[in-house]
Amino acid sequence: MSKHVYFFGGGKADGSAGDKNLLGGKGANLAEMVNLGIPVPPGFTITTEVCTAYFASGSKYPDGLTAQVEEALGRVEKLLGKKFGDAANPLLFSVRSGSRASMPGMMDTILNLGLNDAIAESLAKKSGNPRFAYDAYRRFIAMYSDVVLEIKKEKFEHDLDALRLQVAKKKGVDVAKYNKEELKKVVPDSDIEAADLKALVEVFKGIVKKESGKDFPTDPKEQLWGAIGAVFRSWNNQRAKTYRKMNDIPEEWGTACNVQAMVFGNLGDTSATGVAFTRDPSTGENAFYGEWLPNAQGEDVVAGIRTPFDITKKAAAHKGNPGTSLEEKMSAAYKVLEGIYLNLEKHYRDMMDIEFTIEDGTLFMLQCRVGKRTGPASVRMAVEMVKEKMITQEEAILRVDPHAIDQLLHPRLDPKAARKFLAKGLPASPGAASGAVVFTADEAEDEAKQGKKVLLVRTETSPEDIHGMDAAQGILTARGGMTSHAAVVARGMGKCCVAGCSAIHIDEKAGTMTVSVYGDGGKLMDTVVVKRGDVITLDGSSGEVFLGAVPTVPPELTGDFGQLMAWADATRTLKVRTNADTPKDAKVAREFGAQGIGLCRTEHMFFAADRIAAVREMILSSSVEQRRKALDKLLPFQREDFVGIFTAMDGLPVTIRTLDPPLHEFLPHEQHHIEELAKTMGVPVEALVKKNNDLHEFNPMLGHRGVRLAVSWPEIAEMQFRAIFEAAKICVGKGVDVQAEVMIPLSLTKRELDLQKEVFDRVYAEVFNGAAKKPTILFGTMVELPRAALMAHELAKTAEFFSFGTNDLTQTTMGLSRDDAGRFLPDYVKNNIFPKDPFQSLDVEGVGQLVEMACERGRKTRPGIKLGICGEHGGDPASIHFCHKVGLAYVSCSPYRVPIARLAAAHAAIKDKGGVKQSSTI
Amino acid sequence: MSKHVYFFGGGKADGSAGDKNLLGGKGANLAEMVNLGIPVPPGFTITTEVCTAYFASGSKYPDGLTAQVEEALGRVEKLLGKKFGDAANPLLFSVRSGSRASMPGMMDTILNLGLNDAIAESLAKKSGNPRFAYDAYRRFIAMYSDVVLEIKKEKFEHDLDALRLQVAKKKGVDVAKYNKEELKKVVPDSDIEAADLKALVEVFKGIVKKESGKDFPTDPKEQLWGAIGAVFRSWNNQRAKTYRKMNDIPEEWGTACNVQAMVFGNLGDTSATGVAFTRDPSTGENAFYGEWLPNAQGEDVVAGIRTPFDITKKAAAHKGNPGTSLEEKMSAAYKVLEGIYLNLEKHYRDMMDIEFTIEDGTLFMLQCRVGKRTGPASVRMAVEMVKEKMITQEEAILRVDPHAIDQLLHPRLDPKAARKFLAKGLPASPGAASGAVVFTADEAEDEAKQGKKVLLVRTETSPEDIHGMDAAQGILTARGGMTSHAAVVARGMGKCCVAGCSAIHIDEKAGTMTVSVYGDGGKLMDTVVVKRGDVITLDGSSGEVFLGAVPTVPPELTGDFGQLMAWADATRTLKVRTNADTPKDAKVAREFGAQGIGLCRTEHMFFAADRIAAVREMILSSSVEQRRKALDKLLPFQREDFVGIFTAMDGLPVTIRTLDPPLHEFLPHEQHHIEELAKTMGVPVEALVKKNNDLHEFNPMLGHRGVRLAVSWPEIAEMQFRAIFEAAKICVGKGVDVQAEVMIPLSLTKRELDLQKEVFDRVYAEVFNGAAKKPTILFGTMVELPRAALMAHELAKTAEFFSFGTNDLTQTTMGLSRDDAGRFLPDYVKNNIFPKDPFQSLDVEGVGQLVEMACERGRKTRPGIKLGICGEHGGDPASIHFCHKVGLAYVSCSPYRVPIARLAAAHAAIKDKGGVKQSSTI
Repeated sequence: MSKHVYFFGGGKADGSAGDKNLLGGKGANLAEMVNLGIPVPPGFTITTEVCTAYFASGSKYPDGLTAQVEEALGRVEKLLGKKFGDAANPLLFSVRSGSRASMPGMMDTILNLGLNDAIAESLAKKSGNPRFAYDAYRRFIAMYSDVVLEIKKEKFEHDLDALRLQVAKKKGVDVAKYNKEELKKVVPDSDIEAADLKALVEVFKGIVKKESGKDFPTDPKEQLWGAIGAVFRSWNNQRAKTYRKMNDIPEEWGTACNVQAMVFGNLGDTSATGVAFTRDPSTGENAFYGEWLPNAQGEDVVAGIRTPFDITKKAAAHKGNPGTSLEEKMSAAYKVLEGIYLNLEKHYRDMMDIEFTIEDGTLFMLQCRVGKRTGPASVRMAVEMVKEKMITQEEAILRVDPHAIDQLLHPRLDPKAARKFLAKGLPASPGAASGAVVFTADEAEDEAKQGKKVLLVRTETSPEDIHGMDAAQGILTARGGMTSHAAVVARGMGKCCVAGCSAIHIDEKAGTMTVSVYGDGGKLMDTVVVKRGDVITLDGSSGEVFLGAVPTVPPELTGDFGQLMAWADATRTLKVRTNADTPKDAKVAREFGAQGIGLCRTEHMFFAADRIAAVREMILSSSVEQRRKALDKLLPFQREDFVGIFTAMDGLPVTIRTLDPPLHEFLPHEQHHIEELAKTMGVPVEALVKKNNDLHEFNPMLGHRGVRLAVSWPEIAEMQFRAIFEAAKICVGKGVDVQAEVMIPLSLTKRELDLQKEVFDRVYAEVFNGAAKKPTILFGTMVELPRAALMAHELAKTAEFFSFGTNDLTQTTMGLSRDDAGRFLPDYVKNNIFPKDPFQSLDVEGVGQLVEMACERGRKTRPGIKLGICGEHGGDPASIHFCHKVGLAYVSCSPYRVPIARLAAAHAAIKDKGGVKQSSTI
Repeated sequence: MSKHVYFFGGGKADGSAGDKNLLGGKGANLAEMVNLGIPVPPGFTITTEVCTAYFASGSKYPDGLTAQVEEALGRVEKLLGKKFGDAANPLLFSVRSGSRASMPGMMDTILNLGLNDAIAESLAKKSGNPRFAYDAYRRFIAMYSDVVLEIKKEKFEHDLDALRLQVAKKKGVDVAKYNKEELKKVVPDSDIEAADLKALVEVFKGIVKKESGKDFPTDPKEQLWGAIGAVFRSWNNQRAKTYRKMNDIPEEWGTACNVQAMVFGNLGDTSATGVAFTRDPSTGENAFYGEWLPNAQGEDVVAGIRTPFDITKKAAAHKGNPGTSLEEKMSAAYKVLEGIYLNLEKHYRDMMDIEFTIEDGTLFMLQCRVGKRTGPASVRMAVEMVKEKMITQEEAILRVDPHAIDQLLHPRLDPKAARKFLAKGLPASPGAASGAVVFTADEAEDEAKQGKKVLLVRTETSPEDIHGMDAAQGILTARGGMTSHAAVVARGMGKCCVAGCSAIHIDEKAGTMTVSVYGDGGKLMDTVVVKRGDVITLDGSSGEVFLGAVPTVPPELTGDFGQLMAWADATRTLKVRTNADTPKDAKVAREFGAQGIGLCRTEHMFFAADRIAAVREMILSSSVEQRRKALDKLLPFQREDFVGIFTAMDGLPVTIRTLDPPLHEFLPHEQHHIEELAKTMGVPVEALVKKNNDLHEFNPMLGHRGVRLAVSWPEIAEMQFRAIFEAAKICVGKGVDVQAEVMIPLSLTKRELDLQKEVFDRVYAEVFNGAAKKPTILFGTMVELPRAALMAHELAKTAEFFSFGTNDLTQTTMGLSRDDAGRFLPDYVKNNIFPKDPFQSLDVEGVGQLVEMACERGRKTRPGIKLGICGEHGGDPASIHFCHKVGLAYVSCSPYRVPIARLAAAHAAIKDKGGVKQSSTI
């Protein structure tokens, strides 16, 4: 017979903290506390396996469960000298869910279980507090009916409100002055007397009878089994399902069910209840932090009707409420609590979140768990705990979620500032900014030149908007996902961006943006018109847009942060490079700890105002000679760029990708831009229109781009090679340590690389002919098409390194256009088809196979081949773990994600070598 | 020491026909003939390995070559009792290239080698024919100078023309009446006398001196080595390179060099030369077929100056030239020739192409090889040779190139008809047709209704044009490749199509098509304007377009063809299905031998005039209810289609693919169509425009299509499932044997399939609830994305079969858009990056890996899983061979390619089991 029920109480428990999978977090930690000798009301946990079996068998309990529950119940009764269902000496229980992972508030709880008329009356007598007894009884009926009998809460609340109104009138309150919610504060529950509550119980029973057609169950055993079933069923309620989806919690885990003897914090002024954290969860300060209420049950602390007090004397004094602290009011219980919290933190070696109740002067612990904390707090706690020798450096690293440090690197909205919500889009690039709305890139540039702070608002951005994005404080788009052009470029610039904000509709001509305001259930409630020049605020970390300016607070890269990153750097083996296209970006990235440039996109340099004309001239050329002439104009610009980048990255590798995007991206597409360009270039408008049409592609992603451009027009790549080599020559001459790597995009075959290598070698020989110092410049390729991965053994014959372009590799492997997927990805997430957006977190199962295969095959041909990844996944912790596992040399990501990647790489290194014991698993 | 030189002559040869790789085709067959006792002038072959070594070492010959050549030379001298370079008893040689594969005319040949002034004089005396001697000498100088010394032929021809003019004048010819070419017929070479030729030799020597700065080499040995080097070098001339690329001949094969004693067909009236085929190469008739000329050298027969005579008496009589045949004129030599050709055909067991020379009554064979033949001839010969017990059925199958039978299945242009060339595009769909030009699908339909034959000419076609394509005799497009919409649909309809004809420019409004006519070197020479209603002719097999009507001849599916296909069917293991969307197509395909439908595209049914309105209503729906209403209208149409198809395919499997293309394909895109639709549907034009814009995708290929549509709108697939099941129920009720397979397109994950399977099972249960007979309907998926192939083990858990959609799989694996690749594929072929268009012939090396992987993984999960391929590759012989090898159950192709696929599948089966000995390898 399997063990379904785990008892705890009387200083000994069947389980321990290690049994989280079986007992859920709450049950395991209750057992652990009991074993530590901490006072915990006795009880028992029904395992998660019972829950799983319950669903698998069509709501049947496994054999033996009833007997085991009976036995555990008997042990509790014996321990407390009370009896469940015995009016003479009644015992009440709480029944709570508790799964492996914390799912706060998602599942159901029933308190005060075991009451009926006789027992309530007995409790009233024994406690000498009939108000307490009938208050518990009416709460129990409402809670049980809601959870087990599925009768809506509101039905009961309506009658409670009516009762409150009577009481208020009786007390002479001018009820017309208050609404329902306000009245709860004027006439709190505690003002309702026992007799009234007793009458209310009868009303509640009537509701149950009417709604369910049956009497409220008076048999405590029947109540108990009803509650157990409801707790298990609550695993599959809609809230819980949604929460699990959001938090990657598997369906099959199931919940445990904790049945525990009730203790009461509402027995009078010697009773109390409270919640606390062993350290400050928002700042990380090592100071006991919590709130309490005398004469209250747990739910009162969080309900917000009564304002709770601070626990410690110091905190109460600080807030100007001396004398209100638990430390002062109930010093004996506080002493016990202090001992327990110190014990728990030492035992769990982490900041704990605890719940306690004081019943008539005696303190009981009801729950403890590792406490949630903000990003900054997690850094401070981790570093301080190492200093306190509580944890190791490796543990400290693992304590900080790489995602969480993002908020440390950007300005944030001042949490205390008032704000007026306007709309919500996708949190595309973190940070916060306010500014005047502009609708075109040119405007953004013009206004910024005059010193104004602007936000660029576009339906979607294109490469032509780069200068405007650069000039703006932030970017807001109506279309596009987390990996749209706006999002990618903004993250690269470290600029805040809200993308895909579908509630806004832009009328560029009218200079307005109309915002649809939706109510509950997606009903259109109102529209707001924002005009050019109106100020709004973006929160790129939440995706929210606010009307007017909301003040921000700057990022704080404290000493603790630096310390943690230093430990991470010492731990990780994976190098972290950055994607940077300009000397300016390169410098920023180096400050963030980048160990090189993994992707320098030469085409981004083409969009600058002083170059785009020559680029367009090149595209419009109809002969090789004409094209060469245009390329000759571009050469000095590119050379200058590379000189700047090599100098900024002195001693660190710089991977330069040759021209990649389809040429039509460089031509203007709007009529007035076309006309302007035609005038500037002295060509007829029709010629430009025709060229645009000729270059139009049905699927540009799969079109004439990457190395295909160089196959058609080898002179383009030749110019780029020459610019790189000449820049390297100049830099080497000045004593700069140049570590250049040239990378060919979108290759499919060895032959494509060979054709490029021929030109590369020839130009190298021409540039360095007779030079004293010849820097080694590597020749490699992107692996960003499935065929390239499959043929990696061939490509490696020519390529000296691979850089996985997992953005495009994901697009082609999954047949998923990054720019179009926004339309149906929500359906895919809703239907549980993709666990995560594959453009944000690498599809390890599918795309990952190709990466692994390419690594293996590449190494077979060229054992020491350098392998790296560039693209969005290089900044995603889960993807970084994969990169570490398959043995890549580096990941490359946007400058502002470099610290995240450094920390994630350290996580991977620690976890991969077997890992350290994590607090969350004990 | 390696053997570099293979001797042949005197009844014995070092090599044999099996040594083709080493000796080239010509050398190996010369050796074989010698071994057979056939009279062949003696000589020797320098191996292809010498050629390869020559290139590898930078134009050096391997050790020992000189000695081996000297030795072989000595053996020839001894055999013939003549001496090379000896004026007293001169021996002349021909030096010819000869590679493993036939490369007719691509490489160089030098005749009459070994002449100088003294030897020419001696030859004149010994032959008693000075005209012959000096004619040989002047030919030799010109040929040697061209090939070895790289002096342009034209320089010599110019002086010969001048001499001819003198001779003509001397003879009193009115030279003003003739141009240069015509004069050659009026005053043939034979009219130029010995003294004139001798003088011409001196002029030629002067040209050599002037152009090369050196005297023409008089040492025969020097001449010989010069010729050998030139033959090897000719392997790498531009012509040869291009030819190899076109014919898939590897660069590394190299050519052999054949040095053979000269025999002369131009020694007088007892001498002659000729070429012949052992059977008629154009009809396949078993009749000796050839031409000859008395007193001539080989090149005269092909030069076209003198009209050659027929070889056999029967043929000469048939052409009205009795008494001119070799059989009558030189009956002794003919008897010998007859014996030889019968011997050769018996020995080689194939139709042979032979060259012979009769020197003073004695017949010598100069070459034999397996003869090229037309498609119809290859079928007739193969079948007749089996009947003659010359070859086996399997050999007969292998003798017919599957590509070649395409011309048997369609009408062809009458080869004898006059034609006026207009332009050339891609041979997108075979067959030929004439008709009046129309520029829109509607026009095509209207005109066709009035009984007119029209050709639909479009810049490119879209699904909206289907009805016009159906109504037209053929389709001509200005853009798009072999796998463009027009090409794919036309092949499916068995309708001729010329695609991507870039010389035409269509002005729909003006109702004209302007055709650019290009001259040599791509210069624009002229433009021709074709107006609406003008008649043109398309040849879909050659890609040519002609002005006016060219008569056609109907396809001849003779008894031999049927016999061959029956043998093929009995041999192959791979089944051949067809891609068919309508009962009509299904019937045609069944007649062509299709064993089922491998791909029935449900969306093609949506475009019919009576349905498109409901389809558009469905797309424009803004709620599930509205969409269901529109779908309810479509249901009866779809059901009716399936009833028709199931009935047509009674007893054979029918694979139906659920809706695949992005929805915007169903909406009109031209302004007047939009306005029309808006009127019909009673919606505002702007609403339609907005929907069109909303549905616009950057990369529709990677967008919202395939199963993704069904994930977003499950009700669409539900309607389709219902239509299929209800149709099956109706058919089963009528006694039709329904073998339906339902296929989900573009799946990536098992979960997508599970979602569809749920609906599939539910609807099946609803439709067949209580039915007496419940047909088994399989549920499967397309594998057309790399991720699907990689995750095949997962997909196979739900999918009962896979159908490889290699069109899309190629697009995604290679990142290559079929619709856009046309722009750079030519550069890719030119640069030798892709050996073949990967959309025509499967990229076995890359894409093939994924197919193989998916087969393996799919079988691991579901051992008996049914595997097939649909899409363009299913009709390509090379791809079919691959499909056979990886063990697919069937290929599916367009109806008109079914016979090709049947034959190709038989080829694969024979080759795969070790194959039969092929005539081309002995």
